[in-house]
Parts: sequence; structure tokens; C-alpha cells
Amino acid sequence: MRTLAILHAAQFVTLAGPRRPRVGAELGELAIVRDGGMLVRDGIVVATGSSDEIERIAPNETSIVDANGRVVLPGFVDAHAHPVFGGDRLDEFEMRTRGASYEEIAARGGGIRSTVRKTRVATEEQLQQRALKHARWFLQCGTTTVEAKSGYGLSLADELKILRVIRDLKEETPLELVPTFLGAHAVPDEYQDAPERYVDLVANEMLPQVAAERLAEYCDVFCEPGYFDLEMSGRLLTAAKAFGLGLRMHADQLTNSGGANLAAELSATTADHLEQTEDDGIAALKKGGVQPVLLPGSVYSLGKTRYPRAREMIRAGLAVVLATDFNPGSSPTPSMPMVLSLACTQMKMTPAEGVTAATINAAYSLARGQKIGSLEPGKVANFVVLDCADYRELAYYFGAPQISSVYIRGQRVWQAM
Amino acid sequence: MRTLAILHAAQFVTLAGPRRPRVGAELGELAIVRDGGMLVRDGIVVATGSSDEIERIAPNETSIVDANGRVVLPGFVDAHAHPVFGGDRLDEFEMRTRGASYEEIAARGGGIRSTVRKTRVATEEQLQQRALKHARWFLQCGTTTVEAKSGYGLSLADELKILRVIRDLKEETPLELVPTFLGAHAVPDEYQDAPERYVDLVANEMLPQVAAERLAEYCDVFCEPGYFDLEMSGRLLTAAKAFGLGLRMHADQLTNSGGANLAAELSATTADHLEQTEDDGIAALKKGGVQPVLLPGSVYSLGKTRYPRAREMIRAGLAVVLATDFNPGSSPTPSMPMVLSLACTQMKMTPAEGVTAATINAAYSLARGQKIGSLEPGKVANFVVLDCADYRELAYYFGAPQISSVYIRGQRVWQAM
Repeated sequence: MRTLAILHAAQFVTLAGPRRPRVGAELGELAIVRDGGMLVRDGIVVATGSSDEIERIAPNETSIVDANGRVVLPGFVDAHAHPVFGGDRLDEFEMRTRGASYEEIAARGGGIRSTVRKTRVATEEQLQQRALKHARWFLQCGTTTVEAKSGYGLSLADELKILRVIRDLKEETPLELVPTFLGAHAVPDEYQDAPERYVDLVANEMLPQVAAERLAEYCDVFCEPGYFDLEMSGRLLTAAKAFGLGLRMHADQLTNSGGANLAAELSATTADHLEQTEDDGIAALKKGGVQPVLLPGSVYSLGKTRYPRAREMIRAGLAVVLATDFNPGSSPTPSMPMVLSLACTQMKMTPAEGVTAATINAAYSLARGQKIGSLEPGKVANFVVLDCADYRELAYYFGAPQISSVYIRGQRVWQAM
Repeated sequence: MRTLAILHAAQFVTLAGPRRPRVGAELGELAIVRDGGMLVRDGIVVATGSSDEIERIAPNETSIVDANGRVVLPGFVDAHAHPVFGGDRLDEFEMRTRGASYEEIAARGGGIRSTVRKTRVATEEQLQQRALKHARWFLQCGTTTVEAKSGYGLSLADELKILRVIRDLKEETPLELVPTFLGAHAVPDEYQDAPERYVDLVANEMLPQVAAERLAEYCDVFCEPGYFDLEMSGRLLTAAKAFGLGLRMHADQLTNSGGANLAAELSATTADHLEQTEDDGIAALKKGGVQPVLLPGSVYSLGKTRYPRAREMIRAGLAVVLATDFNPGSSPTPSMPMVLSLACTQMKMTPAEGVTAATINAAYSLARGQKIGSLEPGKVANFVVLDCADYRELAYYFGAPQISSVYIRGQRVWQAM
């Protein structure tokens, strides 16, 4: 039995509160303890409170981490990421600076399909080495749990290859990964003339195999004209549900095409992106109990200016989530601190709303809200020590190195020089 | 005599070229050596070339730094920063997320003047400790030279206090600082009813003392209606020139108010910001030989969408510079990698143009182009090792920790874990 006491955080940010996703004004309530700390036993939070209280109840042999006036936050939970891929899209990145749009590049065979070609020729070992680099980035940015989608294979063998890399990655990194099957990420080159046949392949061959091998907790679909339309998306997600998978959805990213409404009809766990979603879509999400996952990194990185309407979603009572959308095309960032900066400066979320959306609400969107996302007795001691005295500094001093150390299950997994 | 060889950079980015600021297509020419390296003696570059060549000419006792397939870049030169201040503006940051504009906050006595109040009550020792934290941030972000403005004192004693902090900081950090006197940053509270009298104070008392103590290389003015109008700005900068100071100018940030034209008339070294500058201002800068210093961090951080017209400036033959504008209000970032990301994604500069603007062109804008900003024989060996194989990854994977190590005068001053 190993006991650890964290003491003297200027702000010990617990996010203690109702045992459900936070909505409305609750998003602004971080339940901060000043000069706070916690007691951790065997990786689990035993108590939180003032440093005095924690010192009083700590057994004699307790190891001490003195936060010394820094901030302690729950580790970030990144609920939308694509961390396993081959190659990069640097040439497309440069083409966009020269004026090409994301849609034009995709129409010319670039975009997702270009990463698919590079991922198919990569071995499992190569993909794993690359994904491990990404895992280190996530940890260094303060993320302790990350959702990980397949979707750059688009054949039975290659989708399984990616999901196995995600599964096996758990042996190599302390980062917790939550696997999502995204066979319907794009229609691959060889099915361009017969997208319906590709949908058949996903529904009839990939899904059963993924479910049989228990390689994914969720199924996701890129619902968008030119990718998978409402009918195809509905068919695939309905099939996935029958296999016991939870549902996530790329919805209304490029066009307001009914994605949010479909997510609501299917009672999906999340609808992600939502840049183009209007009032009716927001109302539908509320009615369907769907959590919106907002991905400002992709809006920023593509040089667009239409961000999802976070304020309206919060007003409508939605349990908003923030995530990186880490991927090699539209959002090549592993950094939740940068996502918080984008949320505050571009979407006008308050820093507290951002932190809630990036921790406890994200945890609920991955069915882990009872286990992670806040620092409360009984929860896993995943936390970050920030080199500042006010949690708002993390979003404010964007790009500054403020992650001081990162802990998973009470074990330090990274520390700054 | 200490000799160092850097070997096996996948891309050794020299920026070798004409011994003057780069214009037009030259901004895209980085003069990269593949599998490259360099020989450094006593902190000065002796030779650059292929790793084979460098190994052949290296004396026996040479220390070796194996870049091992990483990228080597010249250290960033940040030509516009305000790193010495008291307090923070976190409350204003949060107010902006709740809908208040920067201009409204300033009109209510917030903004620059709120930082002035906090800076005046801080001791030299307190300001130095705080500035040292900022210096560490700059180094960790790959910046090896930074311009440092006063401007949060706005009284003779407090402006001198800040400039002495900047001078004394050189003893405490390897970061090179270039001091700029910005007494005309805002009209302080006590002169709100008589701004002309404050201009008198700057011209007749501050400038002579700053010059006598040799506390600044440059003089800067915030030229903007409501701050210092064209007449006041012209008067102050003309006086500064007579004292032998170089001229910089905050121009056309909030309104297109003739700032660029004034900078050209005065043959200022730089005109900074330029968010609102139109074609005639760009033409004037070209005619006056003025370098534009673009500060996309402040546009981003204030949630605005009108960025300076970098492409038109490059087409017009201007030697564009990029800088952070690090300050506690409008641009709280010390990160040149984030500025590169903003330049590529929001201003559509190519990654190569961004690197040139952030190194050699910035060095020329600080009268140090013959000494730093590129890796060529005779120059100071200030360089950064990036944890990637293609220099474009730095702007592409925004927010990812990619600075592997930082060297100043051939000495390692920072290394990632």
C-alpha cells in the first residue's frame, strides 16, 4: 500500500460536484480549494481538502509532493483524437498557405485518403512507434486519457491493424486509451465509384470482427455530404449499436447537413465538430441527451473563422466537451492547453467552462465520469501540476511551457526540466 | 579554445544568403543542408556543410552534438516584446470571454494602465524575478534574442526602473535582450486631462536620462488615436533620433490612422502591428525602407480576425518580420513556434517565409543581422534542435513540445526531458 499526499497547491482544482455531466452555470464551478491538497492511496483519491487537513490525516509513511504554490488540476481527458496514422500532411499544410482549401485538396485525392495510403503501407510496429511519440506529446501536454479512433485503414485488415496498435499501446504507455472504430472515416480510393459497397463492407465485415475481438468501445462515422450521407451514417451507427458499441459522430463540420439531428435520433453519446449546427440542431441534441464535442483546433488550423456556437450550447443546457481532434490533416495538435486558449479567445468560453469541458464532461462522454475527470474520493488520481498560481494562466499564456508534472494513478509519468 | 561539432541534422537550416534583410522570394529560401552540421569555435560558427565535411575538418578534441536526424535552426529572434511588468490581466482576459472588448476595458481604466499601476508598486527585485520566469519561457520556446520594451512605468523613475531591470537581466540569463524605451506606451492616469504635458515629460525628462544612462537602443511610440496621435508621435520619435536612438513604432493596430506613413517619413527601423494598414501604407513602408513587424498573437488573443496583410507586404518587397508581442494584455505568449503557426494558418505565410521572418529578418530589424539570425561562418552559434525531421513540423504540430534543446554562443542553455 503506497500513500501519497499532495500539499500546498495555491489552487487545488477538484471539480467536485454532481455525479453527472455539468450543464449551464455548473460548467463554471470548479470547486477550488485554496492551499489545498489530497491524499492518494494505491492510485486512488482518499481525501481532498486544505493542506492542513490532509497533513493531519496522512499516515506516517506517506510520500509528500509539495505543489509549492502551483495549481493542481485533474488530468485532461481528450475525447476526440486520431493518434494512429502513417506519414504526415506537411505538403498539404504548405499548399494551404499558398491558397488551396481543405476541400480542394481532398477532391484531388489528398486529405484523409492520402493518410490512408501511407497508413496501409506502414507495419504495426511502425505505427506503434509513431503513436508512442504522440502518446508522449499527450502526456507532456497534461492529457491522461485520450480517445483513439481508427479510420486511416479503410479495409478490414488495415482497420484491425490500427485498432490492435491502439490496444497494444496500452502496454507501452501509461496514457489511458479509449478505442473507437471509425471505418466510415472516408470512402477509400478503390470504392470511389461504389460508396454503397464500402458501407456494406463496414457493416457486414468490419463491424462484426471489431466487435468479436472487442477492439473498440465506440463506433464513429464521418457524416457529411461527399463522405457518408445521413442514410449511410444512420445505417452504420444502428448496426454498431446492435453490436453493443457506443455511438459518436462527426457531424455538421463542413455543412449543416442534419448530422446533429441524426445523432439525437440515434441517442448517440456524442456529436462532434458542429461548426455549422444552428438552433434546431442544438435543440435536437438537448432533446436526445447528446454531448457536443467541440474541436476548435480544426477550425483554427484550417484558417476558418466559424467556430461552433459554444455559448448557445451552454445556454441550451448541453454538457459541452472540448477535445483536440489530433490528426495529421485538419488539427495537428495534441495540446489541450492550446484547445483551452482557442475556447476562451475564439469561442468566448470562460476559462472555468473550458476546464470543465476538458475534464469531467469529457470523462462522462467516454463513460468514465464515475472514475476520472475530477479529484474526489474514490476516483483515480490522474492529475497535473501547473507552473502557475491561477488555473486561468494556462489558457491565457498560450504556448508557454506551464505543465510542471503529470501523474497517472498517483505515479509521476512526466516532469519538466 | 573550445570546439564543438553539430552533426547529422536531417535538415540543417542555415538561412545563408545575402548579407541584408530578405525580400520577396528570398523569404522562402532557407538554404537547408541535408544530413548537415557545423563547426563552432568559442561560440562562433566556423563552417557549415554536410556532416561528412564537418567531420573531416573537425580537430581531434572537438565535442560532438549528434542531432540524430533532427532539425537544426538558428535561434529565434523576437523583435517585439514587453517582458517586464507587474501583475497580470487575468480578470480582463476572463472579462473578454464574457463579451467585453479590449477597447472597452481600456476605456474603463483597464488595459495598459492597469498593468502600469501594478508595475509601479513592484520593486526592481520583484520585476526581475518575474522577468526571469519570462526569460526561461523564451529560451524554452527556442528564442535566443528578444527585444524588451519599457512602457509600464510611465513616470521618469518607473521607466528607468524597468530599463535597469532589462539591463541587469543580462547578468542573470543567457538570453540576449535588446532594450527599447517605450515611455509613450499610454498616457498615465495622472495625465489623462493633459496628455500634451505627458509628451513634454517623455521628451524633456525621460529621453535625455535614458540616453545619458545608455539604457536603450531604440525608442518606440504607441501611435494611435486616444494614445499618441501623429503629431505627438512624430515629435517624440524625432527627439529620440536626435539622441541617437533607433526608431520603432506601434502603428495602425486598432485604426488605419497614418502610422505606417509616419514611420516611413521618419525612416523608422520598424513599423509594428499594421493590422489596419492598406495599400498606401504598404507602399510608404517600402519607400521609407521600414521593416514591418507582424504580431499575429495579439490578433488571435483578442479574438479578432483581421490579420496584417503579410502576402501583400511580401509582394511589395518588404522585409517582413514576425514577433510575439509578448505582453500581459493583448498577446500573452512567449512562443515563436505559436507565432509561426499563426503566420501559416491565419496569414497564409509559407513555413519558410515564417522562419525567415522570425530569424534573419528579425535580426536585421535589431541591427544584429551581421551577427545573428543565420548559421554562417563568423556568426554567433545561437541555435535550436527540433525534435522533428522537417522544419515545417514546428508550425504544423502547433502546441506540441518539439523544442529539443537550445544553444547560445555554442553553450547548451536548455534541454527537454
